[in-house]
Amino acid sequence: MTEISELPDAAKDFLLPYLPSRDTILAAPNRPHITLTYACSLDSMISLAPGVRTTLSGPETKSMTHYLRLKHDAILVGVGTAIADDPSLNCRYPGVSRDTQPRPFILDPSARWNVADSKVRRLASEREGKSPSVIHSDALFSEEQLDAMTSEGESDVPNAERVFVRGGHSTDSSVTVQPRHIDWLDLLRVLKRRGVNSMMIEGGATIINDLLQHPDLVDSVIITIAPTWLGQGGVTISPSPQVKNGERVNAANLHQTSWRQFGSDAVLCGRLTR
Amino acid sequence: MTEISELPDAAKDFLLPYLPSRDTILAAPNRPHITLTYACSLDSMISLAPGVRTTLSGPETKSMTHYLRLKHDAILVGVGTAIADDPSLNCRYPGVSRDTQPRPFILDPSARWNVADSKVRRLASEREGKSPSVIHSDALFSEEQLDAMTSEGESDVPNAERVFVRGGHSTDSSVTVQPRHIDWLDLLRVLKRRGVNSMMIEGGATIINDLLQHPDLVDSVIITIAPTWLGQGGVTISPSPQVKNGERVNAANLHQTSWRQFGSDAVLCGRLTR
Repeated sequence: MTEISELPDAAKDFLLPYLPSRDTILAAPNRPHITLTYACSLDSMISLAPGVRTTLSGPETKSMTHYLRLKHDAILVGVGTAIADDPSLNCRYPGVSRDTQPRPFILDPSARWNVADSKVRRLASEREGKSPSVIHSDALFSEEQLDAMTSEGESDVPNAERVFVRGGHSTDSSVTVQPRHIDWLDLLRVLKRRGVNSMMIEGGATIINDLLQHPDLVDSVIITIAPTWLGQGGVTISPSPQVKNGERVNAANLHQTSWRQFGSDAVLCGRLTR
Repeated sequence: MTEISELPDAAKDFLLPYLPSRDTILAAPNRPHITLTYACSLDSMISLAPGVRTTLSGPETKSMTHYLRLKHDAILVGVGTAIADDPSLNCRYPGVSRDTQPRPFILDPSARWNVADSKVRRLASEREGKSPSVIHSDALFSEEQLDAMTSEGESDVPNAERVFVRGGHSTDSSVTVQPRHIDWLDLLRVLKRRGVNSMMIEGGATIINDLLQHPDLVDSVIITIAPTWLGQGGVTISPSPQVKNGERVNAANLHQTSWRQFGSDAVLCGRLTR
């Protein structure tokens, strides 16, 4: 496992304007401060192929990720990432305590993820991270199912709490509801009411591509770029095309950008332009 | 037109290790020093759609491009870029003289480009740039055609010289030979024999994607990344996928990387790993 080391002060200063603060939390009182973050190749890919875990960050940017996790109440990833990577979603930054660990949230609208066998759950049981919460779509389940799942949760899925949010308007249970069908505003409101004041959203591509086009919901974007090309056919970060007056225009933009070299990678911080 | 301004010394120092030098030119005596350079979005796109000219560089990186052109004997682009963008391919850096202008080369294997109407030719006639050279595939033309085209060149295509290189092994003239079918080593040897000691290759995507997998032919890579996403369906820089022992591996890698912020963009310099 990569050694996580303390960031130099200059790197902390570089990140500071983009981190959750009292000001950013008060500015959006109905939702957490949202930091969107991912690591990609020069060809904007986060993995070589769907379901293949691909190492992109060097040790310096890996340490940065754990520093960022320390600065947020929660981390969210989509169910695809949870199944493909079985990620730790904890913070291993020097000096972290169980109280300062972020809470892992898995956005799993149609309940595909097996929390019982997950690394997240194991780490929670070893007190190396907080216990995970799983977010389901309420539209997919009847009230009876919801009740059953919620009470069942106590025994069958120890260490994982279920949260239900709006979205996934199909009632046909044969249709897999994707994270992109979720009502983000409802989700963020629900999490805020549960005391989540800041959340890092780390992937996968479906969620990131969707949120890059929601500047109203995202406070900061922090991207690690590794000096490698994964090659055609990988899992790509690139939002849906946008058309204005019949012509294609840029799909999303950052402003207040700041770049810094971390080892052989670069980190870009910025804010989505409305 | 964007104002081109003198780069600060720190920016020049940043670029220096990647520029052509006596050492790099002597190290590869049979070909020019090759610098591969492009500007792309965060989703690794150089334009919104094929044939659509898309502004990506800010004023600082635009100035850098002209500084780089000043430091090379020649610039090469593919015929697709020449037709789509009608680029200037000259240097407008402060203090440039006609003698220090780079020579524009258009890689046009099957003679599709109309040099007579081009901006490159007009700029040459106005003494704002050197006259262009057009590179054709010798396999596409009979000796008689070559002779006719070459002598014709003097009168019909003033200010443009034709260069013939190996590649495009189809003799069926209905097949359009793409730049990627060219024998790069032969092309570079031919240019070296004509006195080209250093060349910047600026695009388009076909040529860049091909050369990213030729670390033996490329000395430096200089990439400008603008903090915007063009969105799915644009023209993408991403090399062909690579498979090793039945598994996908990274398609190309850089080492000796150095990053620097230029305005709101970043510039990455590096060398392709063999």
